[in-house]
Amino acid sequence: MLYAEDIVEGRIFPFGTYVLSEAEVVDFARRYDPVAIHTDPVAAASGPFEGLIASGFNTLAVYQRLAVEAVWNNIAGIVGRGFEVRFARPVRPGPLSGHARVESLTLRPEKRDAVLVLRSELVDDTNQPVLVLKMDALIRMRPLSS
Amino acid sequence: MLYAEDIVEGRIFPFGTYVLSEAEVVDFARRYDPVAIHTDPVAAASGPFEGLIASGFNTLAVYQRLAVEAVWNNIAGIVGRGFEVRFARPVRPGPLSGHARVESLTLRPEKRDAVLVLRSELVDDTNQPVLVLKMDALIRMRPLSS
Repeated sequence: MLYAEDIVEGRIFPFGTYVLSEAEVVDFARRYDPVAIHTDPVAAASGPFEGLIASGFNTLAVYQRLAVEAVWNNIAGIVGRGFEVRFARPVRPGPLSGHARVESLTLRPEKRDAVLVLRSELVDDTNQPVLVLKMDALIRMRPLSS
Repeated sequence: MLYAEDIVEGRIFPFGTYVLSEAEVVDFARRYDPVAIHTDPVAAASGPFEGLIASGFNTLAVYQRLAVEAVWNNIAGIVGRGFEVRFARPVRPGPLSGHARVESLTLRPEKRDAVLVLRSELVDDTNQPVLVLKMDALIRMRPLSS
């Protein structure tokens, strides 16, 4: 388990791979983003993206799954406070991967925590970025020995 | 259908209500955000929030469902380009509602589109904000008559 003192700016956490299927794109969108470019492959084929694309919120959820496995399972996190995201390119069903990079880390010894700013990218199977996300979170400093 | 010329700054789109169940919180998190405060009511009860809370990405997906029904089904939208989000408060299972407000609208007549900035809030059943989101999207100007 990594505490704030263990993390240096510039550290990179490589993501694994998540294969987003057409069925998942459609199921997610039927519940959360019910518009035809995400739910209807036939209508989407004649739409502005010439085929089905994932809801941006589906892509964000996939990002979080990869971030939990690569980052949050290994860091003494407290809570994510917010983020900025840009949707760089339409996402088609297929594999997604990427990485997170520590952009800054600000220790707050009086609170025994730190503000971690992580910049993450998801890339598609042609290695083009589809999502760029900058998140800030609180993480713990190492417990004081008793 | 509303085009860019039909929308004025300050316009408010009230959201309906989405009831987020504990089962949905757990199911969503098992797939996309598998950490105990979102997936395990027993472990979460003794955790920092004293009970199960929804993944922020689940809350975002609920926001989008409400926004599709209140806004995007009624506007000639093209694509969302990105957003900033703050998670203002932990989200428990229960009803979520809120509204979106037009913060700015910039017509681009040469492209027959406009940049729409929407500021949205989700509130819980005590009417406290849980999520504040500022999104920018491209929407269409009214088609030129032929």
